[in-house]
Parts: sequence; C-alpha cells; structure tokens
Amino acid sequence: MHSYAQLLQKVNEKIANNHFGSKPDELYQPITYMMSLGGKRLRPVLTLMASDMFSAQVETALDAALAVEVFHNFTLVHDDIMDNAPLRRGHETIYKKWNMPVAILSGDLMMIKSIEILARTNYTPFVDLLEVFNTTAAEVCEGQQIDMNFETRQDVSHEEYLEMITLKTAVLLGASLKIGALIGGASKEDANHLYEFGKNIGIAFQIQDDILDSFGEVAQVGKRIGGDIASNKKTLLLIELLACAHKDDLKYLQQLFGETDETIKINEVLKLYQKYQIKQFAESAKQQYLNTAFNHMSQIQCAEETKSVLISTANELMERMS
Amino acid sequence: MHSYAQLLQKVNEKIANNHFGSKPDELYQPITYMMSLGGKRLRPVLTLMASDMFSAQVETALDAALAVEVFHNFTLVHDDIMDNAPLRRGHETIYKKWNMPVAILSGDLMMIKSIEILARTNYTPFVDLLEVFNTTAAEVCEGQQIDMNFETRQDVSHEEYLEMITLKTAVLLGASLKIGALIGGASKEDANHLYEFGKNIGIAFQIQDDILDSFGEVAQVGKRIGGDIASNKKTLLLIELLACAHKDDLKYLQQLFGETDETIKINEVLKLYQKYQIKQFAESAKQQYLNTAFNHMSQIQCAEETKSVLISTANELMERMS
Repeated sequence: MHSYAQLLQKVNEKIANNHFGSKPDELYQPITYMMSLGGKRLRPVLTLMASDMFSAQVETALDAALAVEVFHNFTLVHDDIMDNAPLRRGHETIYKKWNMPVAILSGDLMMIKSIEILARTNYTPFVDLLEVFNTTAAEVCEGQQIDMNFETRQDVSHEEYLEMITLKTAVLLGASLKIGALIGGASKEDANHLYEFGKNIGIAFQIQDDILDSFGEVAQVGKRIGGDIASNKKTLLLIELLACAHKDDLKYLQQLFGETDETIKINEVLKLYQKYQIKQFAESAKQQYLNTAFNHMSQIQCAEETKSVLISTANELMERMS
Repeated sequence: MHSYAQLLQKVNEKIANNHFGSKPDELYQPITYMMSLGGKRLRPVLTLMASDMFSAQVETALDAALAVEVFHNFTLVHDDIMDNAPLRRGHETIYKKWNMPVAILSGDLMMIKSIEILARTNYTPFVDLLEVFNTTAAEVCEGQQIDMNFETRQDVSHEEYLEMITLKTAVLLGASLKIGALIGGASKEDANHLYEFGKNIGIAFQIQDDILDSFGEVAQVGKRIGGDIASNKKTLLLIELLACAHKDDLKYLQQLFGETDETIKINEVLKLYQKYQIKQFAESAKQQYLNTAFNHMSQIQCAEETKSVLISTANELMERMS
C-alpha cells in the first residue's frame, strides 16, 4: 500500500512527463501552464488509491489518474471564464493571462485529451471505463449549469441543492475511485461501493465547506468568514434558514439580502443561524452523508488493512477542514 | 447502395429521435435547438456512405454518424462565441439566444455526448474508432487556433495556410469517411485511402471557397463577392499575391488593406489578382488536391460501382460551388 504522499509524487511525475502536444503554442502553452499550477491532486490520487486496494500494479492506473486530473482542470478553465475569475491557485487564469478564445479552445482540447489519455489504459472492455468517465463528465456540466441557475432563483429546495453539489463536485470523486478500482481488478459491486463512498464523502465535504464559510476560523479557512453570506449564496445553511425561519425573521432576512454594509449583513445573518440552530442542522446532514459513505466502505470485500489509507485520507481531509 | 437523399433522411431521423438528456433545460434545450437547425449534414452522410461501400448494414454506422455531427455542431457553438456571431444557418446562435456561459457549457456537453454516442457503436477494438475520432477532434481545435493566429499575422506562408485548412475542416471529412469505412468492415488500407480522399477533397472545397469569394456570382455564392478581400482575410489567393507581386504592387496592396471604401478596395485587389493570374494559380492548386483525392479513391479495393455514390457526391459538391 502506498501513502498519499507517495501517490501524489507519482501523479506529479506523470503530469510533468506527459507531452500534451506542441503546435500551436497558443493552445498547448496554456494547457501546460494550467496543469503545472499544482493543487492537492485529490482526484488522481483517489484513482491510484482505489487501484492500490485491489492490485499491486498501481502504475496501471496512472493514465486514468492523469485523465481524471486533466478533465477536472478543463472544467476549471471553462468555469473561470464563466465566473470572470482573475486568479486560480494564486496565479492568473488562462482567461486573463491569454484571452477568452484561447481559454475556450484550450479547455476544449483538454477535454479531448482527457479521453485520449484514458484510452491508453489497458482495460477490457474499455467502453465500461469510458462510460463511467462520460456519464460523470456530463453530470459535472449539468451541475455547473444548475449552480448558475441558482443565482437568479429564491426558491431552491434542500433536495435541489444536494443534487447540485452531487453533480457539480461529488460524482467526480466517486468516479475517480470507481475507475481506479475497476483498473485494479475490483468486482463491479466493490467498484460501485467505492463510487458511493466517494460521492457521499464529496457531499459531506461540500456541506463542511458551507459550514466553515460561516463558522470557521480565518486561519483555517484561508479566506474571510461570511463570504457566502455577503454574496447571498444559496448554501445548505441559507436554504435551511429560509425553510424554517418565522415570518418576521424571513422579512428581516430579505431586507438583509440588500444590506450594503457587509459586516452588519454577516453578523445579523449569523445571529439568525444561531437562533435557528442552523449549524447543528448542517452538521447533522454532513454526518448522515459520512455515515452512508463509511457504510459503503464497510461492504467492500477486501482486507480491512487495504482500506486504511483511503479511510484515513477521508478523515484527515474532513478534520483539516473542520 | 443508398443515395445521398436516402442517407440524409436516415441521419435526420436519427437526430430527431435521439434523446440528448433533459435536466437542466438550460443545457439540453440549446443542444436540441442547435441540432435541429439543419444543414446538409455532409459529415454524417459521408460516414454512412463509406459504411455503405463495404457493408449492407448501413444502420450499424448510424451512431457514429450522429457522433460526428454532434461533434461538428459543438465546434460551431464554440466558434460562434469566439467570432461573436449573431446568426447560424439563419437563426440566432446559442451565444446570442441564451448567453455565453450557456454556449460554453452546452458546447462542452455536446463534445462529451459525441463520445458517449460513438461508444454505442459495436466495433472491436473500440479504441481504434475512438483514436480516429479523438485525433481529429484535437486537430480541429488546433486548426481553429491557427486560424485565429492568422488574423494578426502578415507573413502566412502557403504551407501554413494549407495546414490550417487541413486541420480546421479537411481532417473531419476524412475521419467521417474513415470511421464509416471501418464500421462497414473495410481494411485499414482502404479506410486510410478513404480518409485521404476526404481530406484532399476537403482542402479542394476550401480553396474553391476562396476562389468563389473573389470570382463567383452572387446568386451562386449566396453572399456578396469580395467579403474576404474587404476583411483582409488571408486566403490562398491573397497569400499567393503577397508572394509573387512586384514591389510597387505590394506597396499599393498594403495601402489597399487600409482603404475604407470597400468597393474600391475589392475592385483594386481583384485587378491585382487578374494581373498576377491568381485565379489560375488557385484553380491549379485545387486540381492538384482533387487529383490526389481521386488517386486514393482508385486504390480502394472494392467494386467500382460501390464507389459511384461517393464520387458523384464529391463531384456535385464541387460543381455546385464552381
């Protein structure tokens, strides 16, 4: 079994040694730039980790791991255009450093290359791997569109919100694990349990993210507290508050949405969160998804010690964020 | 053997009956809209035509034909954003009818769906089909970027121009045929000859397009004559003129690039084209690619009568344009 650090090194070497293409420079330089910006490489490491649970040949899953990371970065490149984002991981986005057409086209090419790289994997029948990848890729696009739709909607339900975060971020964690497991030789059942583990952990991460934005420490979150509140973002916390607050508080909340003094806005919404025990609600929802995740993990038919790296990775990620 | 009209009907039925997806509406409505705008459906018809040359089961190639058309439309959706184009086939572009994020995301989803649809094809090994598709998809993106680069360059060579049109438009015609041929059971050699036939025909089409823009009839071209000249577009004609004109004429040409009266500009450049026999040069280049195309066709190992539909289609397309 390999540690996160060991697998991360394999992923980073794979990325550094991959030749995406050369001509024209205007397309391949942005791709190399984007892929070199780093990050924790969670998704490709998950692919290797899942493969490592079932096979001693973790290298066999390296192409698939790279494909997952290239796909993830493609979504970031296009998201940055749609969000008009100037920075990504502390560096200029492709959209800002080059221009919009280059960001559209280099993103398109990354999507195509992700399939090309996946196709190098020696797995039979290959269409089974491709189906997991494609279904997930389509879902990630759907999730992004649903998230954009929320910006202009006031009536987002809990279910709709949970579906959105599932599609936008959680399914790719599930698919990263499932693809690795299949390549490692896992049964369909075990691969599906790992998919559900990753998906549910992903939903829990996202809820945790929502909680920390309102109740975290600046040092821990790495950004100011209350950013979601300031931008009226529909998080699970706000959706729950809208669902359970009394009439007068709802009226006050609507008024706060238009408040221009951000400090007042954030403090007053936090007071409402406290009054209605919104943090407890979100913590309980998060715990439910964690329970589901670990329940799936417990059903996987392999020696318990082979599960330890993935389990401690999930726990560490949750702790680092809590 | 089926006629173009018969195959077109099969393609149109396939498109009309395909369910791309449903939720969210904001993503799937634009896709259905774009795919319903029509057009001559040249690429998917070529896929069926090539399959028809080697197999009686043309339906087997229908998914691949649809995949090629969905991919082609994905490129149009993103091109329209980059070109800031208001109209496509006489209807509003997705970019204008919805907005830029919807056009980016629905394009992305069409790219993903094209692979998903291709993967329904029963062909072994499937990765062979996928490789043709992926390589071509990447080349089309490269060609689009090279074309954009030309806008700000004055020193485009004949070779660079021909490489650009090859990548941007010709390889997809070649790949449409090759994929159909492989599904129909053609040998690798015959499939490659068909690829070269399609690619070279595609280059000839594009040169013909350049010629018609300067020397066609309005009724035939469907748009005003001299549009390329008015916009200083680097066509094969202009590149040749820049390469062979005498110093004084070159100086005058540079001056014409800045001429604001379009009628004067077009007439004066046309005079230079006549002086240097640019039309004859372009006709001869076109003929060379046509010869190469038909030379590949003649090497294909199948009964001559099975080639007739594709040959007459290519001839009719060239004639309709000349």
